[in-house]
Amino acid sequence: MKALLTITLSLFALSSSTLSLAQEQQQSPADFVNPFVGTSNFGATHPGAQYPHALTSVAPFNVAFEHEKLNKFEKDAAWNSRVYIHENKFLTGFTHVNLSGVGCPELGVINIMPTAGDLELDAQKYGSTYSDEHAKPGYYQTTLDKYDIKAEATSTLRTGLSRYTFNAGQGNIILNLGLGLTNETGGSLKIVSDHEIEGSRTVGTFCYNPQDVRPVYFVARFSKPAKSLGTFKKMPKFTGVEGEWMQNNDSIKSYPNYRHVMSGDNIGAYMRFDTEAKQQIEVKVGISYVSIENARQNLATEQPTFAFDETRSKAKKAWNALLSRIEVQGSDNNKTLLYTGLYHSLIHPSIIQDVNGEYPIMSQQHTAQVGNTQGKNRYSVYSLWDTSRNLHPLLSLLYPEIQSQMVDSALAMYQESGWLPKWELLSMETQTMVGDPATAMIADTYLRGVDTFDIEQAYRAMQKSADTLNNNPIRPENQDYLTLGYVPVDDEEPYDGSVSTSLEYYVADFALGSLANALGHEQDALKYLTRAQGYRHLFDNDTGMLRPKKRSGEWPTPYDPELGRNFEPAPGYIEGNAWNYRFYVPFDIPGMIDLLGGDSRFIDALNATFATNNFDMGNEPDITYPYLFNYVSGQEHQTALNVQKLMAQHFTDQPAGLPGNDDAGTMSAWLVFSMLGIYPVSPGDMDYATSSTAFDKVTVHLDQAYYPGKTLLITPLAKDQKQPMLNNKTLTNGFVTHQQLTQGGSLKLLAPVE
Amino acid sequence: MKALLTITLSLFALSSSTLSLAQEQQQSPADFVNPFVGTSNFGATHPGAQYPHALTSVAPFNVAFEHEKLNKFEKDAAWNSRVYIHENKFLTGFTHVNLSGVGCPELGVINIMPTAGDLELDAQKYGSTYSDEHAKPGYYQTTLDKYDIKAEATSTLRTGLSRYTFNAGQGNIILNLGLGLTNETGGSLKIVSDHEIEGSRTVGTFCYNPQDVRPVYFVARFSKPAKSLGTFKKMPKFTGVEGEWMQNNDSIKSYPNYRHVMSGDNIGAYMRFDTEAKQQIEVKVGISYVSIENARQNLATEQPTFAFDETRSKAKKAWNALLSRIEVQGSDNNKTLLYTGLYHSLIHPSIIQDVNGEYPIMSQQHTAQVGNTQGKNRYSVYSLWDTSRNLHPLLSLLYPEIQSQMVDSALAMYQESGWLPKWELLSMETQTMVGDPATAMIADTYLRGVDTFDIEQAYRAMQKSADTLNNNPIRPENQDYLTLGYVPVDDEEPYDGSVSTSLEYYVADFALGSLANALGHEQDALKYLTRAQGYRHLFDNDTGMLRPKKRSGEWPTPYDPELGRNFEPAPGYIEGNAWNYRFYVPFDIPGMIDLLGGDSRFIDALNATFATNNFDMGNEPDITYPYLFNYVSGQEHQTALNVQKLMAQHFTDQPAGLPGNDDAGTMSAWLVFSMLGIYPVSPGDMDYATSSTAFDKVTVHLDQAYYPGKTLLITPLAKDQKQPMLNNKTLTNGFVTHQQLTQGGSLKLLAPVE
Repeated sequence: MKALLTITLSLFALSSSTLSLAQEQQQSPADFVNPFVGTSNFGATHPGAQYPHALTSVAPFNVAFEHEKLNKFEKDAAWNSRVYIHENKFLTGFTHVNLSGVGCPELGVINIMPTAGDLELDAQKYGSTYSDEHAKPGYYQTTLDKYDIKAEATSTLRTGLSRYTFNAGQGNIILNLGLGLTNETGGSLKIVSDHEIEGSRTVGTFCYNPQDVRPVYFVARFSKPAKSLGTFKKMPKFTGVEGEWMQNNDSIKSYPNYRHVMSGDNIGAYMRFDTEAKQQIEVKVGISYVSIENARQNLATEQPTFAFDETRSKAKKAWNALLSRIEVQGSDNNKTLLYTGLYHSLIHPSIIQDVNGEYPIMSQQHTAQVGNTQGKNRYSVYSLWDTSRNLHPLLSLLYPEIQSQMVDSALAMYQESGWLPKWELLSMETQTMVGDPATAMIADTYLRGVDTFDIEQAYRAMQKSADTLNNNPIRPENQDYLTLGYVPVDDEEPYDGSVSTSLEYYVADFALGSLANALGHEQDALKYLTRAQGYRHLFDNDTGMLRPKKRSGEWPTPYDPELGRNFEPAPGYIEGNAWNYRFYVPFDIPGMIDLLGGDSRFIDALNATFATNNFDMGNEPDITYPYLFNYVSGQEHQTALNVQKLMAQHFTDQPAGLPGNDDAGTMSAWLVFSMLGIYPVSPGDMDYATSSTAFDKVTVHLDQAYYPGKTLLITPLAKDQKQPMLNNKTLTNGFVTHQQLTQGGSLKLLAPVE
Repeated sequence: MKALLTITLSLFALSSSTLSLAQEQQQSPADFVNPFVGTSNFGATHPGAQYPHALTSVAPFNVAFEHEKLNKFEKDAAWNSRVYIHENKFLTGFTHVNLSGVGCPELGVINIMPTAGDLELDAQKYGSTYSDEHAKPGYYQTTLDKYDIKAEATSTLRTGLSRYTFNAGQGNIILNLGLGLTNETGGSLKIVSDHEIEGSRTVGTFCYNPQDVRPVYFVARFSKPAKSLGTFKKMPKFTGVEGEWMQNNDSIKSYPNYRHVMSGDNIGAYMRFDTEAKQQIEVKVGISYVSIENARQNLATEQPTFAFDETRSKAKKAWNALLSRIEVQGSDNNKTLLYTGLYHSLIHPSIIQDVNGEYPIMSQQHTAQVGNTQGKNRYSVYSLWDTSRNLHPLLSLLYPEIQSQMVDSALAMYQESGWLPKWELLSMETQTMVGDPATAMIADTYLRGVDTFDIEQAYRAMQKSADTLNNNPIRPENQDYLTLGYVPVDDEEPYDGSVSTSLEYYVADFALGSLANALGHEQDALKYLTRAQGYRHLFDNDTGMLRPKKRSGEWPTPYDPELGRNFEPAPGYIEGNAWNYRFYVPFDIPGMIDLLGGDSRFIDALNATFATNNFDMGNEPDITYPYLFNYVSGQEHQTALNVQKLMAQHFTDQPAGLPGNDDAGTMSAWLVFSMLGIYPVSPGDMDYATSSTAFDKVTVHLDQAYYPGKTLLITPLAKDQKQPMLNNKTLTNGFVTHQQLTQGGSLKLLAPVE
């Protein structure tokens, strides 16, 4: 639908050796990252130390216990999915497995806390306020006020390393398996020696659907042998005579020097040390989802000594290696926003395999079988309803070798469990959210030229999701969908989103049909692309909305398109209302324009969405909408204007600088694309809608193993120029294709409105 | 102090081959045992299947949950030390490690319950009433009314075997690690296959002093592979938003087909089967205190198949091998009382080593080290404050080879931990009760001629307890005791029993002094025997009581000798009042007679004890008192009369047929001795006081590896004869020595009063 573009290659390219030198002399991309962004306003990121796509991170944990003055948000009082909340002030340790930017409480366990003086084992009592916080990629530090202990953390892919600086006296380090962001309970530990503890903690049941769990295994080693040690456990509440006799009724009971295995809901271990002034004691923790032995091997391989500064330096280098794929010239504030956004886009999916390649396989039967990646990465934490929209396209553009392995992992899950993932966590399919986003993600990846995975197997997997009529965990109600052309509202268990589900199926079918075309499967292509057009069944000419429809073809009444705006249940819609989903056929906006009665009515409807506050920057279905102005010739400046406005309004260099949950990096990926000035309109559609770039110059280093171009340069046009240009040829509308961009060259976009 | 006795050997001896033949033709001793005796009136025995001195037993568990109509006694509402209470009616499974006759709640875990129909995992809901109970040594059966399932249990030394007979339909077997008599929590399990579960459960903190715990490991195997299986866990109570979202808030959550390790306070696993009418499914459980691997090896060795009937038969044979050391002629009722008493005397101490000889060593440092018995038994569960009085003397008389190994185990504990045991449980010193009873037990054993242990090491161990002034865990306040001659009341943390403690030290010192004499250590003998006389410091001439005394020598006032009668705290006395302890210098009753002002005053005081209801048959300090009449010439018939009266009053062939806690067999040992007509007056004193025998004829088969005699025959005198006779020579008073009896021969005792 868009005019052909003329392409000219840019000759500009900064060699990576020059870049490294430049980095040393000036601030590197990692230096601009502000890990506190997203730690307020429900962003659900954390400022802890982490590697890109790491299995382990070390995050400050400040969400346990209500506290009138210190803790505004308590982890269980609300649906809190955050290990760290900027407004909170009461810290109870550092957790070693953490999720970033998700919407349900999970992980946030293997909690280690340093204290001083007499041993207190009740976290509510040993917790402390903290100050002097500082965080950079791969490093976090703070000072625990109550004990005047400086706590620092860094990490490798599979190990955390903390360094605690004590004063003279008695230092204590407490490993608490009871505390956890997860609502799942249960752990087991054993003090192996005076400087080692091993064990496991149960996690899982993400969003409680389904109720599946897994153990996470750990080995913690201390840089100094403990002078004394022990375990502890919260005892239940006894009443009557036993309540009187129990020395630890409904309270913490300690087991000095206990060396056997200890299991329970709320257990822990402690190590005590005589400390001199400024004495540093380090704790390294190896994590595995396979076994204690693997956790120990991960630790031995990645952190054989206690090399804190070297580890911190390596982590920063690992971040810079990825962040520097984009080089920018512009304001420090914009650099911070961009690199922080890119940082948050490089956390999930995260690896799950151990250094020996072992990982827990995904099985419908929940068997505890172990697979081996044979040298590849096995990724986990697939929040595909979110990330299929823009995060994976971003990875395809910038890091195709990583995205390809993410597809590999998804295909391995298909091999193991029989189905592609939907919302996968630690090899568990959580069935969170709706649709068939793996199909959208995989087809999109291949169409972008990232084809280093088994496309034949992938195609079979996607077809299975698309065509299995019954007992289809990916596409429930697929028989109705295929028969009627939409998922009818009739059988909704209250509010499971028949419209939303249908729309996701159309998106997936469009992507699959486009892939079928590319693979030369013409009949398949026709079939799936026709299915994608089924959205027209749900278009209600009277309201101009995509509306829930009965099996009989009738519209159920009454109908309120505003219902669902505040996340209250709304028949037909998941996480949104009719407005939020109004234009959610991103693969066929021209078709939607037709349905709505032409360009003018479409622009009116689009404007009305923003004007009536029915646009939600914080949720995925509508995040493409600010870019939809491009579909009407002459309205492209509206896209630039709206995107700029939304960035200014929702994205800042502050803890509240994300518009709600980062959604495993989806919001951040939106920001990264938007700051570059391009946005992928739909999975399977190779068009990027253009807006304005936030920088004086952007250099994207392309991976030449995948793309013909070496670099893509993006710069702003002069203020009076209103037509974007690719390689000095005018783009006659506001779109440019992925294939054009990955040829490399120079893209000139509208100057920002000031 | 007693006159010399003339000895004549009895020629009577029934050969053991003749005995076996006789057993086959008529009821064997085991057939007379009623395992329900002691399951009411706080006896704390259980009717479950068990081997003599076994590590494992399989007991019905009916003490969970309050139930207005069904469960009169709930395990946590009172200080309940019983897995099974006869009055209760609500059964929630069968437990595989159990204590017998103790006074604190411990063990009662590894709980397995069969159910039928839909799967219910909440024990409060799946529990059932039961009927048609039957129990014999090594066998228990009942029918679960709710499911019409016949449940049978038998066992070997280290394994339990249950057989459940289902109806046609759906059968379920639930392993619940949450339920437990112990107040300790926490377990871990893993479903290994469709017919095997392994795991561990924490137990310990017996009487909460000190707070030490241990894991008990298990492997459970099923005779039929499960059709479906899973684990479950009790979830905590969440409030607010999370409470609304949680599908299993404050309730049981199941994890179908979960195969990873699961840990927690309240967890379990289930196996489900399609069953035909009368289908029997068996579950065998191997137990170990060392490791899961050892539990599996115990199971493979002792129960390689599912040989229920053979196992039951072997268990009965093992019991008969021990019970038949005493043969009797008399009423069936008396046979039941005697053999049930002997059965209860042969449960603790019980073995703790695995088939490979491994056991958890006793360490002050709680290190999880493992020892190896090298073919011997390692005994555990030493309730020595109780059992040193009569149970170990009974074992020395009847089973010297067993008693010798019990001393060996106590000495191994000394080697491992530095101290002899006091109240040892699973290689943990619980420090329950007072005194130095291991010294009394070991010295007594040696003096009885059971000398097949390392007496030199034993003597060093006993001297360490006796002579270590400070930090002496066996004899706290030993410095005061040695300086003043008694433990002063001054430093009592309210009511820790200065008089009781002193009296126990005197008893131990008497035994140790007597041993020193026997070993030729004359100076030591003088020292310890002199110490034993220290009781005179506590004798208050005004009240005629052994009374708490201050360090200054003053008696604290006010003073009420009745205080403590109902187990309320009484300064100076543990578990009793001044009356209960009044004559508790069993090694020197003649001395006490002198202090009290002569025979007549002594007899008056003794009679007053019984007359004023200040004698407590259910507690140890005074259980020798009915025999003390023998110390006054001409009063011997009073002993016979009192003992007969107490037996009739407190010991019956009924669930309430024990006078309170059996105290690890101490009450039962009292009954056995009393029915024979002899009673060991004091540890270290080789005199038995005689009373009357309850039988027409008693034949005690002596162990000729230890004793010169082959059999000891006890018969009643004619009613008009008032002087007991040994080998047809009149005993001039009511005593006979252990050495006399173990020569073998014929003892004729007073005829029972009718």
